Amino acid sequence: MSNRFGGTGVSISELLAGPPRVANVGVEDLARPLEALGVPVESVDWRPPALGDEEAGWKLAGLIADPRIEAANSETIERMLAVQPVWADVRPAADVLPELAADRLLLHAGPPIEWERMCGPMQAAVIGAAMLEGWAGTPAEAARLASSGEITFGPCHHHDAVGPMAGVISASMPLIVAEDARTGRRAFSNLNEGQGRCLRYGALGDDVMDRLRWMSRRLGPSLAAALRTLQEPVNLKVIIAQALQMGDECHSRNVAASAQLTRRLAPALARHADLGGIEALEFLAANDYWFLNFSMVTGKLATMAGHGIPGSTVVTALARNGADVGIRVSGCGDTWFTAPAPVPDGLYFPGYGPQDANPDIGDSAIAETYGLGGFALAAAPAIVGFVGGTPQEARRTSEAMALITAGRHRDLQVPALNFAGPPLGIDCRAVLDTGIEPAITTGISHREPGIGQIGAGITHAPMACFADAIRAFGLPGAAGVPAR
Amino acid sequence: MSNRFGGTGVSISELLAGPPRVANVGVEDLARPLEALGVPVESVDWRPPALGDEEAGWKLAGLIADPRIEAANSETIERMLAVQPVWADVRPAADVLPELAADRLLLHAGPPIEWERMCGPMQAAVIGAAMLEGWAGTPAEAARLASSGEITFGPCHHHDAVGPMAGVISASMPLIVAEDARTGRRAFSNLNEGQGRCLRYGALGDDVMDRLRWMSRRLGPSLAAALRTLQEPVNLKVIIAQALQMGDECHSRNVAASAQLTRRLAPALARHADLGGIEALEFLAANDYWFLNFSMVTGKLATMAGHGIPGSTVVTALARNGADVGIRVSGCGDTWFTAPAPVPDGLYFPGYGPQDANPDIGDSAIAETYGLGGFALAAAPAIVGFVGGTPQEARRTSEAMALITAGRHRDLQVPALNFAGPPLGIDCRAVLDTGIEPAITTGISHREPGIGQIGAGITHAPMACFADAIRAFGLPGAAGVPAR
Repeated sequence: MSNRFGGTGVSISELLAGPPRVANVGVEDLARPLEALGVPVESVDWRPPALGDEEAGWKLAGLIADPRIEAANSETIERMLAVQPVWADVRPAADVLPELAADRLLLHAGPPIEWERMCGPMQAAVIGAAMLEGWAGTPAEAARLASSGEITFGPCHHHDAVGPMAGVISASMPLIVAEDARTGRRAFSNLNEGQGRCLRYGALGDDVMDRLRWMSRRLGPSLAAALRTLQEPVNLKVIIAQALQMGDECHSRNVAASAQLTRRLAPALARHADLGGIEALEFLAANDYWFLNFSMVTGKLATMAGHGIPGSTVVTALARNGADVGIRVSGCGDTWFTAPAPVPDGLYFPGYGPQDANPDIGDSAIAETYGLGGFALAAAPAIVGFVGGTPQEARRTSEAMALITAGRHRDLQVPALNFAGPPLGIDCRAVLDTGIEPAITTGISHREPGIGQIGAGITHAPMACFADAIRAFGLPGAAGVPAR
Repeated sequence: MSNRFGGTGVSISELLAGPPRVANVGVEDLARPLEALGVPVESVDWRPPALGDEEAGWKLAGLIADPRIEAANSETIERMLAVQPVWADVRPAADVLPELAADRLLLHAGPPIEWERMCGPMQAAVIGAAMLEGWAGTPAEAARLASSGEITFGPCHHHDAVGPMAGVISASMPLIVAEDARTGRRAFSNLNEGQGRCLRYGALGDDVMDRLRWMSRRLGPSLAAALRTLQEPVNLKVIIAQALQMGDECHSRNVAASAQLTRRLAPALARHADLGGIEALEFLAANDYWFLNFSMVTGKLATMAGHGIPGSTVVTALARNGADVGIRVSGCGDTWFTAPAPVPDGLYFPGYGPQDANPDIGDSAIAETYGLGGFALAAAPAIVGFVGGTPQEARRTSEAMALITAGRHRDLQVPALNFAGPPLGIDCRAVLDTGIEPAITTGISHREPGIGQIGAGITHAPMACFADAIRAFGLPGAAGVPAR
């Protein structure tokens, strides 16, 4: 009897000559009655495209394999890969973003959000920043200013910047200035405060405020001075390349990159003891998250280069404000496509649990848009330990992410992927078509203001963002979509 | 027809009813004629115990599974695991080993060897050390002193010390002093010179000598001063534990451990700019091999604790002098069991090849006796790239080493081994029984004096050392073997 099932050359009698062979596609429960009768069932993991969203599904069908989109996505990937991110400077935020002081503006993580809808940790970070700037003497006064409209708010992403967790950036905070050596384009991030009780996790208190003031007064200036004396500029992509060989995925694990960057900078910092160089070395000796903000600013520079390509379905921003997750898509202009933020799966510090967790927050998922974090999880098996996983699961996550991306890194390699580059450039079409949501490694904040970090884990960007983007997507020249 | 082949219940006629099923055990060539006739042959990789050495084989048969040996080996492992290696000090060698100055003594890597039999790189290192000590003004004069007996030689291992490659230690060189925090026992190693043109690889020249003099005058004193100001002592095992999660196997790859140790020490070094602290930070910023000598001294401290246990067949030293490989065994006193040193398989720097390579050299294989290097290769897939291998091969090497060891690390873990500890404690019996030679990751020196490193790769400790050890091994109380 032929093994072929269906098609020409198999008669009905041949088909019925043997026992039935059953394949069950999609919902696994439908296989249960047959299994109960002893019939072997081959289950296939399948979900309808666009998770059954009919409008997005039909739209998607017309976009799959369109050569214009393929070309636009390739162009997006090439532009992202071509960026050579150099650490150019450390400057007070108001020096590079004068609107912060002029407009009493505070930047925050994620898509736009007003004070009333901000989650606890973000409100706490706003209060801390207002006090840091001297706009308010007490938390209550700061909250009053914020709610009365005397402080204005804007997403970091609207100012070429990114900030982890609450992502609040104010005028006096020192910023990393990263520059694409090929184009001179610049992007910004704040400096990392370390772990535990930090403003970005919504912690407040003298310890938090003292550290922020020290960062403005001593850390920033000593770093800036040290940078100026380096013989060769620091190429952040080179450090990321090393770190991916050293157990970092450069989002939730940054130990190797932090140690490498500190070792590189140490002699220059030591020469600026007067400006705070030795204190800076003490701070850096214990900050395993130090490189996170450099990884983020690298991702921001790359996605800025990849943004605005007509016909591209590649994601160029993925950010959470603690209430909503938002994405921007290269070919969809500056629109944010948002959905409610989920609570991450994670490992909690003693005494805390999921009921205490704030929904997903921070611009740090810019790392994932650049092929790091969850996309490079194979590089960092220690991370999956957060949620009881194995190195094999970490590798499978990276492999799954390759199903929803338009390219791969060429200069970066992951040993556990047989030295292949991490997958890069989330393609909204592929997310909808496969039903695979982008994996994000992340820290977890307490939902109440003032407390801080309570864990770390893994989460996913919600499908609804990608469905919305596909619904809104238009090819250049098509009705209603202006060609560039 | 039964599937069982042989045994009761299968008649000759049953046996001959089907086509033949052939298993070929050992030499694969014996299967070729049958394969040529189209007969499928199952080849089994098998070598006779002790590689066919009849005396050692019979001796081995009597030692396998002896409960007294099992107990002695377990005790050896426990003592090795209990060591808490702390970086206690940096001191001129003559301070801690006064015999170096008193006897015009130079230490060298590997088992004992006289000047005439020393390989090119070791003779070059002797010449450089004699000039460093001011015993000679020219290489020719130094060579005359060495050959006339006016310089004496002894293995590092005979002085509780270890040195990589040529391993030459002279009176004025600064030594790492490592101490077991539980017992106060001390072991020593020299400081790592970096990569490329170094005395330990047999390079000579003003660059090499200037660096050595700077290390004595500035690097050693600034490190010693920095160490004294640390609030907490540096536990080297903690750094090794971190590094195994970061792509190091702590023999041929030490990037992560070097960066971590440097970051830890940086503030304290910065505070001793007068003694050379900033120069030290500059040197450490670029020395990816810095931690190798710390890894070695940790292995030496552990194997010293495990040495001298009656009835133990565990290897407590594995060292090469560029002519011979030698091992010492815990239950065999201070005897060296030696065999000719092989040339490593490796990746060569441009312009060099195996014909230029010196046979295997250095005390650094003490790392392998402590479960690092080739035994922890799964942690460092980047290393196998030296010889064109894959991450899977790196993992298989660690798994193979587990077949010839008496235990596993508990405080150290390797992600790619599903977070199991690297195998630890080479059991001479298992090496002979399985025919598996210990894998060693190593640097490669040019065979001519004065040139230096030309590559890096993987080699194996020769079976003959282990066969000799088993032949000489005696249980305590047995004829001819004094009980302790």
